[in-house]
Amino acid sequence: MIDLEVLRRVSDTLEARKSANPDSSYVSSLYAKGNDAICKKVAEEAAETIMAAKDGDRLHLVREVVDLWFHSLVLLRHHGLGVDDVVAEFRRREGISGIDEKNARNK
Amino acid sequence: MIDLEVLRRVSDTLEARKSANPDSSYVSSLYAKGNDAICKKVAEEAAETIMAAKDGDRLHLVREVVDLWFHSLVLLRHHGLGVDDVVAEFRRREGISGIDEKNARNK
Amino acid sequence: MIDLEVLRRVSDTLEARKSANPDSSYVSSLYAKGNDAICKKVAEEAAETIMAAKDGDRLHLVREVVDLWFHSLVLLRHHGLGVDDVVAEFRRREGISGIDEKNARNK
Amino acid sequence: MIDLEVLRRVSDTLEARKSANPDSSYVSSLYAKGNDAICKKVAEEAAETIMAAKDGDRLHLVREVVDLWFHSLVLLRHHGLGVDDVVAEFRRREGISGIDEKNARNK
Repeated sequence: MIDLEVLRRVSDTLEARKSANPDSSYVSSLYAKGNDAICKKVAEEAAETIMAAKDGDRLHLVREVVDLWFHSLVLLRHHGLGVDDVVAEFRRREGISGIDEKNARNK
Repeated sequence: MIDLEVLRRVSDTLEARKSANPDSSYVSSLYAKGNDAICKKVAEEAAETIMAAKDGDRLHLVREVVDLWFHSLVLLRHHGLGVDDVVAEFRRREGISGIDEKNARNK
Repeated sequence: MIDLEVLRRVSDTLEARKSANPDSSYVSSLYAKGNDAICKKVAEEAAETIMAAKDGDRLHLVREVVDLWFHSLVLLRHHGLGVDDVVAEFRRREGISGIDEKNARNK
Repeated sequence: MIDLEVLRRVSDTLEARKSANPDSSYVSSLYAKGNDAICKKVAEEAAETIMAAKDGDRLHLVREVVDLWFHSLVLLRHHGLGVDDVVAEFRRREGISGIDEKNARNK
């Protein structure tokens, strides 16, 4: 079983990149470009996820979902949030009404 | 520190819903509708994530990212994949070249 | 050759629906739900356009592009704009530097 | 009143670019990259349209809708279709049940 802690390490590294020189890394430059640029990346990766799923290309699909989650984490960090906030919300839903909580919420 | 295992529990529950009656839950009905319906939900949640980020509404943003990750996990399960595949890919990138691997790949 | 004026008729009808009862039509209810609801529809139709293109289903593709343009027009109307503004911008680009103006702009 | 024929001129020019050298223009290079690259642009422009609408920036909104329609036309051309197909579908809906045909279809 694979250790999920890599998500926290990624989230922590993304926090560290916030104070780095914009020229020093892809992520630092993305922060410097701001909210719209990060949002645009989230939209792009969602589109690529859909296209990989349409192709039925499982290897590609996993990579695109990772790109999507990765850029979601960059967006959260840009707003002072991190993977712990995501996990806490997943746990809140688990506690209330299981994975179909969203369904209940939408009714 | 919050336990990330909730992601695995969600991923496992999503697997169990695959063999359930389509009428029994939101997720079961989504599987029954098929790949396009799940892809459409991923696109919707990405759009809602962006709109929450534009509003600067942090509580809403976390909820939308959870919806986005949740539907990504449904999509992965539909293709016989799960959170372990996502985590393995994150670890592969960590091993190779850190969080800026994507950047390197794009060049 | 097909008369493009249908686009102006649609745009005009969409304007008329702004003052109609929200229960009276799909479009009136969409205006009543507001900007986010309309934006979400634009995102959905873009996703469906992509999926139809991935399927190579030309009939479906045309229908999705029409849905996309239609909801773009609803969004424009919601912001006090219409098809004439779109056409004027197309003409402005034509005048300046042809259809590759966007490319020039991005450099 | 602005002449809608610019849409047909753009659509015709896009057709001409299909046989041009991929290095000769932005659009020619986009055709050469293929369906996924064009789809990705449609997704990007939809995201930018939404962000402009969220900002309430009308000038920006018009430009993004033009980018969205423009790349929709590139996608249609890539599949052997054009603005006349879009207009014919708008007219078909007008004939059947007005602008709320989509609503009826979804029920």
